[in-house]
Order: sequence, then C-alpha cells, then structure tokens
Amino acid sequence: MAMNRAAQPIGVFDSGIGGLTVVRQMQRLLPHEQIIYLGDTARVPYGTKSAETVTRFACEDAAFLATQSVKALVVACNSASASALPELGERFSLPTFGVILPGAIAANEATRNGHIGVIGTQATIRSGAYERLVGELNRELRVTSQACPLLVPLVEEGWLDHEVTDAVLREYLAPMLVGGVDTLVLGCTHYPLLKESIARVAGPEVALVDSAETCAAFVQRELQWQHLLATEGEGSVRIHVTDEMERVSEMAGRFLGGPSHAVQQVELGVL
Amino acid sequence: MAMNRAAQPIGVFDSGIGGLTVVRQMQRLLPHEQIIYLGDTARVPYGTKSAETVTRFACEDAAFLATQSVKALVVACNSASASALPELGERFSLPTFGVILPGAIAANEATRNGHIGVIGTQATIRSGAYERLVGELNRELRVTSQACPLLVPLVEEGWLDHEVTDAVLREYLAPMLVGGVDTLVLGCTHYPLLKESIARVAGPEVALVDSAETCAAFVQRELQWQHLLATEGEGSVRIHVTDEMERVSEMAGRFLGGPSHAVQQVELGVL
Repeated sequence: MAMNRAAQPIGVFDSGIGGLTVVRQMQRLLPHEQIIYLGDTARVPYGTKSAETVTRFACEDAAFLATQSVKALVVACNSASASALPELGERFSLPTFGVILPGAIAANEATRNGHIGVIGTQATIRSGAYERLVGELNRELRVTSQACPLLVPLVEEGWLDHEVTDAVLREYLAPMLVGGVDTLVLGCTHYPLLKESIARVAGPEVALVDSAETCAAFVQRELQWQHLLATEGEGSVRIHVTDEMERVSEMAGRFLGGPSHAVQQVELGVL
Repeated sequence: MAMNRAAQPIGVFDSGIGGLTVVRQMQRLLPHEQIIYLGDTARVPYGTKSAETVTRFACEDAAFLATQSVKALVVACNSASASALPELGERFSLPTFGVILPGAIAANEATRNGHIGVIGTQATIRSGAYERLVGELNRELRVTSQACPLLVPLVEEGWLDHEVTDAVLREYLAPMLVGGVDTLVLGCTHYPLLKESIARVAGPEVALVDSAETCAAFVQRELQWQHLLATEGEGSVRIHVTDEMERVSEMAGRFLGGPSHAVQQVELGVL
C-alpha cells in the first residue's frame, strides 16, 4: 500500500523546549500538519557544549523521530543546526531543515548597510555557521557575532521584561551597536521571547530577524516545492521530552502562546 | 594481597566543573590524597532537572569512579546530593559523602537567631533536603530557601564582580533578608566564586556557609574516623569530563585557584 507521504507527521527537535517557538510559527503557517516535537530536556542545553557532543545528541533525537514515521526533520535548535546538519543528512534519508540558513537568507534581505549582527549560544557563535552561510549568499556582507550565554537562563527564569535582562542585553549588544549593524539575527530559539527587550535596547533602526519565524516560512516553501505539504485535516502537536519536569507543560504553554500542553516522557536509545 | 585502602584514591563527581571548589578545599585539608574528579559536562547542569534523571546520571558518574578503585565517593554537587545519595549508597559499597549534611551542620552551628537561609539550584531547593537535615539537627530552626537559577550561568560567564550579578543577587536575596535570616548556606558548588558579591548584598550581619569548605572538612573527619586517610606521599588531582570543551582546562584553573589543568574526556556507560 503506497503511503501518502504528505499526510505523515513532521518531526521537530530541540535541546529543550525553546524550539516550540518554531512550532508556534509552523502552526500558524502550516495549519494541517501533524507535528511531533522532541525536547531533550534531560541534556539541555546544547549551546554550551562541543560540536561532537551536540552532533551525537542530535542524531539520537532524530533517531527517535525517525521511529515516528516523519516525512521531514526540522532542527529547531541553532546549536544543533550549526553542528549536526551534515551528519543528520547522511544518517537519515529525510528532508532536513535547520534554522540557520533561513535566518541568513532573511538577514541578507533585511540589511540596508550590509552589516549584520548575530546573537546566539556559545556553540552557535563558535561554529561560525551564520558567517559562512551569509558569506555564501553575499560576499559583500559583514557579520559581527556575539555569544550571549545568559539569555537562555533569563528566559527560563521568566525575566522577559526585567531591568536585569535589559542590562545584560546592553552589555552584550553594545559592541555591535557601536559597530553599526542595522540587522540583528536572533540566533537562538529562546530569543523571540525577548524580542521586546531586544528591540528596546537595539533601537528602532535595527531590524530583528526571528529565526523561528524564518525557519517556519522556509519549511513551508520547501514542503510545498517537494509536494509534501499536508493540505487537509486538522493540525496537531505532540510534545515529547527526555526529562519530565513539573514546569514543562506550563513552559510549553508560554512558548506556544496558549494553554499548557500534555507532555510525554521518552527514553532515547544511545546510538 | 591485602590492599592498603587508605592509599586508594578518592572519587569526586559533579554535574560540571563547579565541584572543583570542593576539590580545592580537599587539597588544602587532605594534602596526601589522590583525587579523581569527574565532571559530567556533556549533560550539565543537573540543577534544572528532575530527581529521577539526576539520580540516573549520578549513578552513571559513580559507576565510572568505581572502576577507578576509589576508597570513597564525594558527591560534590548539591543537586545530586539532594536526590541521589540513598541510591548511590545502595548500589556502591563505598563511604559516600554529599555536600548537604555538612552544610546543614555548619549552618546549625553558625546561626544565632535560628533563622537560616539556603540558596541553590531548582533541583536542590525543590528537594527540600536542607530543610529536612536542618530539622533533624534542631527542630527549633527555621529555614527559608530560594532557588537561584541565574547564578550558575553568571559564574560560568565569568561575571563574578559585576553590577548585573549584584542586581540578580539583590532580587533573589531580598525576601530572606527582609525575613531576617542571619546565616546563609551557599547551597551550590558554583556559589563560593560569588562569595564577595553575596557578602556585599547580604551585609556583614549574615554569616555565609560555604558548602564546599564544610564538605571538605566533613570528608576529612570521616576518613580519619574510618582510618581511610592517606598520610604520606604527594597529593594529586586527575580531572575527567564527559564533554571536552575548549574552555574546561582554563575554567578548571579558575575553580581550583591555580594554573590551567590537563583534562581527559571519558565516555560513561549507560546503566
């Protein structure tokens, strides 16, 4: 029996639940899709760890989603997108989309003076992935990047509108603002929750590129192109995590912008 | 051939490299000991995760140290001490010391007004371990506790003497300072590096209990009592981590208060 591939679910994973900001945008743009989400909350964060370890964890995450008969993989994590995409492409015969290329494309379109700023975790910034991809799109562009390891903990603490968060942002962003960037890529799936603070600190002259939004739009374009878009039925989200925490379903609501969600704990096989 | 147990090494583990603050105090008090340290840097932090997951990780850490013929285990991690000690005691036939009991004893000795504050990670505070142990020592004592999830990231970012750190501390400590605690337990192995900021915010009336210091003194007493103390030869430290990061050896130096240290990466078996 031939399977209707377009009707199969999309697998989305992240180191934790930050990737739900991508799911939220996917729900908006892809209302008929079944989404299976995995957050590796037992080993979160990835952004402070080495490329080798992040790649190993990402392959274990993808292997779980592959058992769920997904038609495509979305790596809703900048750190994993920066390190693991080639290996994921090799191991799993699935269309695989990361968050970095869509963000680089959007930044290229948004900048007027050719100077782009990128903020992200240590792993993302150290990888140089944004610089490389922006450079491949347009060699004339200049990228200034800054690792911001305190922003994820601030989001998880819920200090979204807080003077400490503004002070931290001022310190992180000062060099690139002084340097004259006119476009800033929010290169971590947690950062869309800080959009207001970031806009306040960066000022109205700086365009913000939300890599969750741009990733969802990219996935939509690509699935359509590959005739994999679900076009009927009601969409859904199933959330899996590797560490069942009290606050996960409440935080899932914060990231998805709705009520709290049922969350199921799974154990990952070690590859 | 009977082995000289006192000459065997001591195994110390933590979720990351924060536990080196305990090692530093052990080196001071136990100059002849061989110390084998394991930092589970691939899965750090433990303090944001569930008791079940922390216990599973702690058992895997201890299993690695057990293969190194250690004479005793030191759980240099408040989160793991709070959750995993009973299970570790059951699985491994080794004298096992955590950081929480020594801190509770020291706080009981330090307080004059009977009101003790405890700061730590979410896992440590949620466990209620300090309250339970302080209560068993002296039922008259009152404990007020506060989870401070931003402090570990601030230490790891190196913002040890920084106005943002002081602002975060003011917010976290305000309720217990208003409530009148006269003793504050630094219930996380990262916090000794913030001692000066904490003292500045808490004021001179509040006694600080450093759980790294009190743990090392407790291990010394207990090993002596059990005739397991090494009394000759030069001490040493061997550091193992589960994720080899660029900055680990430099950060190890920061925590140990000396030059950078050679660090070896190991893979943990899954139990």
